Amino acid sequence: MVILDKIKSPEDVKALSPEALDTLCQEIREFLLQSLSEQGGHLASNLGAVELTVALHRVYDTAKDRLVFDVGHQCYTHKLLTGRMAGFESFRELDGMSGFPKPRESVHDAFIAGHASNSVSVALGMARARTALGEDYDVVALIGDGALNGGMSIEGLSDAGQSGEPLVVILNDNGMSINQGVGGFAAMLSRMRTRPQYLRFKRWYRKKMMARVPGLYKILHWVKNWLKERIIPDNIFDDFGFEYIGPIDGHNIQQTENALRWAKDRGTPCLVHVITQKGKGYPPAEKAPEAFHGVGVFDLKSGVIHYTGEDFSSVFGRSLTELAGQDSRIVAITAAMKEGTGLIGFQETYPDRFFDVGIAEEHACAMAAGMAAQGLIPVFAVYSTFLQRSYDMLIHDVSLMRLHVVFGVDRAGIVGRDGETHQGAFDVAYLSSVPGMRIYAPASFAELRAMLHRAVLEDDGPVAVRYPRGGEGRFRGDTSDKPSVILREGTDVTIAAYGWEINPALDAADMLAAQGISAEVVKINTICPVDPAPVLESVRKTAALLVPEDVCRTGCVGGRLLAAAGEAGIYLRHARLVNLESGILEHGDPAALREKTGLDGKGIARTVREMLDGKDEA
Amino acid sequence: MVILDKIKSPEDVKALSPEALDTLCQEIREFLLQSLSEQGGHLASNLGAVELTVALHRVYDTAKDRLVFDVGHQCYTHKLLTGRMAGFESFRELDGMSGFPKPRESVHDAFIAGHASNSVSVALGMARARTALGEDYDVVALIGDGALNGGMSIEGLSDAGQSGEPLVVILNDNGMSINQGVGGFAAMLSRMRTRPQYLRFKRWYRKKMMARVPGLYKILHWVKNWLKERIIPDNIFDDFGFEYIGPIDGHNIQQTENALRWAKDRGTPCLVHVITQKGKGYPPAEKAPEAFHGVGVFDLKSGVIHYTGEDFSSVFGRSLTELAGQDSRIVAITAAMKEGTGLIGFQETYPDRFFDVGIAEEHACAMAAGMAAQGLIPVFAVYSTFLQRSYDMLIHDVSLMRLHVVFGVDRAGIVGRDGETHQGAFDVAYLSSVPGMRIYAPASFAELRAMLHRAVLEDDGPVAVRYPRGGEGRFRGDTSDKPSVILREGTDVTIAAYGWEINPALDAADMLAAQGISAEVVKINTICPVDPAPVLESVRKTAALLVPEDVCRTGCVGGRLLAAAGEAGIYLRHARLVNLESGILEHGDPAALREKTGLDGKGIARTVREMLDGKDEA
Repeated sequence: MVILDKIKSPEDVKALSPEALDTLCQEIREFLLQSLSEQGGHLASNLGAVELTVALHRVYDTAKDRLVFDVGHQCYTHKLLTGRMAGFESFRELDGMSGFPKPRESVHDAFIAGHASNSVSVALGMARARTALGEDYDVVALIGDGALNGGMSIEGLSDAGQSGEPLVVILNDNGMSINQGVGGFAAMLSRMRTRPQYLRFKRWYRKKMMARVPGLYKILHWVKNWLKERIIPDNIFDDFGFEYIGPIDGHNIQQTENALRWAKDRGTPCLVHVITQKGKGYPPAEKAPEAFHGVGVFDLKSGVIHYTGEDFSSVFGRSLTELAGQDSRIVAITAAMKEGTGLIGFQETYPDRFFDVGIAEEHACAMAAGMAAQGLIPVFAVYSTFLQRSYDMLIHDVSLMRLHVVFGVDRAGIVGRDGETHQGAFDVAYLSSVPGMRIYAPASFAELRAMLHRAVLEDDGPVAVRYPRGGEGRFRGDTSDKPSVILREGTDVTIAAYGWEINPALDAADMLAAQGISAEVVKINTICPVDPAPVLESVRKTAALLVPEDVCRTGCVGGRLLAAAGEAGIYLRHARLVNLESGILEHGDPAALREKTGLDGKGIARTVREMLDGKDEA
Repeated sequence: MVILDKIKSPEDVKALSPEALDTLCQEIREFLLQSLSEQGGHLASNLGAVELTVALHRVYDTAKDRLVFDVGHQCYTHKLLTGRMAGFESFRELDGMSGFPKPRESVHDAFIAGHASNSVSVALGMARARTALGEDYDVVALIGDGALNGGMSIEGLSDAGQSGEPLVVILNDNGMSINQGVGGFAAMLSRMRTRPQYLRFKRWYRKKMMARVPGLYKILHWVKNWLKERIIPDNIFDDFGFEYIGPIDGHNIQQTENALRWAKDRGTPCLVHVITQKGKGYPPAEKAPEAFHGVGVFDLKSGVIHYTGEDFSSVFGRSLTELAGQDSRIVAITAAMKEGTGLIGFQETYPDRFFDVGIAEEHACAMAAGMAAQGLIPVFAVYSTFLQRSYDMLIHDVSLMRLHVVFGVDRAGIVGRDGETHQGAFDVAYLSSVPGMRIYAPASFAELRAMLHRAVLEDDGPVAVRYPRGGEGRFRGDTSDKPSVILREGTDVTIAAYGWEINPALDAADMLAAQGISAEVVKINTICPVDPAPVLESVRKTAALLVPEDVCRTGCVGGRLLAAAGEAGIYLRHARLVNLESGILEHGDPAALREKTGLDGKGIARTVREMLDGKDEA
């Protein structure tokens, strides 16, 4: 790494010659491939954004200027160029470097990122703050074509274009949405990428603009505005009030740098449309960018990805496909997550009953409501953290209409290495507040299959099945025929748990038994509405209750059980809720995070002992 | 009402002559004006949609075809034409007719409405269900230009346009967003409305299309597509894959009917752009459509609206304007609700520090986060029910960044006549689950002023001040200097309440005193994080607790107090949570709704007596 090793800050990038820049990009790719093949991460999008990021750092000073990433998993080159190369040694580990932009990690990270489509809004807020406070810096939003599909980005563009605020939006168009064939924006961008006359005109126009011939510029500008006002605008960006420049070859540093400088100097809302290739420079990722999107360990030479085995997502996908064979009313919906939610097989088997709406969780949920109102059984498979986007539609469109929409809530609870923007820490709280919502918490593949069957074919109204990232723990049984079951009898303390957390609960019971404490383990299967009777029945015997949950405290199941005990006049000598408290939980290996939060077997056993020793009493 | 009185179903509308239709429209306007001047409701939008609704009922059979309203407050003519004229006698009263579409009220109401921008998504879901199930009916979404600004509508349009599903979207463009000067969509529609060449071409094109000259049609279609593919599309709808027709004069029944018939027959996604005038036919409403949007009682002759006096919204707006005079970092944000949230005065005083982003709650919240990240103090004034849209941004953009954004949560708790889509029943649940969120619940104007001052100038991180619709009750004091206070001492039972609910709590204490029961009333000011100590201290004395709240049960403050009592090992002989349970609460006068839910003074006193008599024990 002749050059990369010498880059201590973006200032060093600004000083490089064109040849050295090419070498730098090559070295960055080598570094990323080596590093990610060993520990996993977001590969394809980062390989695609190398030159663009280098160009950005040559034009802007990210210590002062505000660069707002969208989703943010394409920030690896940015981290490398801002003095964080060593961070890749503890990458995405507890207390190590995050896989996403994080202001507390570096002054060069302007804002957190993790969820899509917010960057233009955040950047506009920053630009308005700058103007209102009379300060002097640039604001840039970097958004991918997939994230453009999310409605909030259009809300942001609509406001930003009309605001007149100097602000640059870089549309990093790597054809993600186009390859997926999703939605009108993909079609629009596809036309914008390929329309030959349009391209030729744009290239010529841009060239003249770059040369900054003032007279010609004025004439061109007048002609353009005349056309725009009288006939038709070029595209939606233009229509919203942006100066549009593009398409630009995002792997050509010089061209990209020129475009960015032009946009920076315009002093008005500008949109720079940059075309990049996902996986650029690594043939296996170029060929299968989706497989190399968020990837685990893989063999660098062959490009073979290490198969991690069956997990809850794949079991969900296969079960749903089987159910669809039994009932033709079943359809599957995803918001740009068909791989992650295990729906590839469903799509192949029932292409006409599979709907990938792109990054559009609000639309997905309201559309599902429409489907259910007219007799289909829609199943929306979505990550816990992204379903937060649909909260209003869950209430307004699904619940108030009492519609039978099923939610496959994937990545519920502790998710791990993607960190605080991706943990499924809130779904129990927000889903439980949706009127009439039923929530199942399977803890094994068999339970997931059985509960999904019931949710889809037997229940009515809104139903959620929430399951964790990854595979099974020690519990592999199927207790799904009852809302709650006693998994293990005991006399000294009741541990009530659900979902994956049943595994550490059982571990804790073993450890406590070895110490002479007899723990009764109650497994809750239906967590909303939760029937408090079985737990309270157990507590009448033990007079002590501990509820470990990998979700935030507000709205947690344990809190509802304690409230029920209070209303029922049941006295608890000891009670303790162990959970994620605020719900903010950083990145790290799930096991390390469970240990840190006291949600592993040892932690639960320790808390039980402390509780019974009276150390926690008020 | 010569003709209107004879309309028993839409079939009767279909049979009318053109002259009779004109008379019908006139009678509908007279009826609506008379009815609404006496009892209030949404006037301006309904006066604007009379002819459009008549045309719709001539083309479609809404008992079978699915007409999906957006927001839905423009459905009054639809209700009149579908046999619900008598319903206006008990309009928006408890057990009376709803002011919004409601499937349980009529087969002609395809879907609930109340929140904006969902109609295209819902309609697409219905169209897909129809196709998947091999059924035969039409699906129409009716969306206003203001709702078009909401991102979900664009997500829906993007998917619908590419889907190829036969589906008609009617854009009812009454210039709402244009008059407000909000956003890029307004600018785009404004150009589409007024571009003369474009209009002429469209008129000519439409005329030919209407005539259905097959040869000419083919040529025109080919030319249009050639132009579209090679040069530039007409507009975003066209770009997404819709057949666009418009602008149509929405007060010309024949023209509108023709356009709708054309769209119905196309068998593809079509967008019909209809121009209407808000308040049409009633000069005071034509002149001031915003004042006559959601209106109370008014004098029909003079157009003078009955002034209802000071309320929490106006106090909020005035207080914020005063605070803005003290600190130039304060800015105000609204999502198309500047009248409702009392911000007109702020806008007049500080136009550069006032941001109306249109119907775009997601963007509003993320933009506020960007502003706060760069040193402003943004205050987002928003109705409790609409802030549900921002749930993900509250967590992801504001909370994870620990940013100081203040939320003025208006219409919290029981809202009343607008019904289940508008009650502020969920904010305590969802706001409490946002990490680090602080929530104040003022119960008087003085407390609102003091708590807003503290939230804006003294606190950091996310802070919400939640206050009800309307004015003060009996409590007019200011206890805001403490998180909780004992308002009234007692020995038999503790009643803990917050916000407006403190008024019936005090009423109940009076009633109970007359019956020899001594109630201690604890007023909670900071409901999140709630300090359980003062309430539990009181309960140690009384051993009985009742918490009345006008929000849903999950995540309610009472539940958190009981959980805290359980963890603290405090025994409650009696405890009872009185709240809105699921959170679904129909329309009606707030007093009637409080009585029905047991949240009025009488209800609380009754529950206390039952509780102390042991009638509710497990």
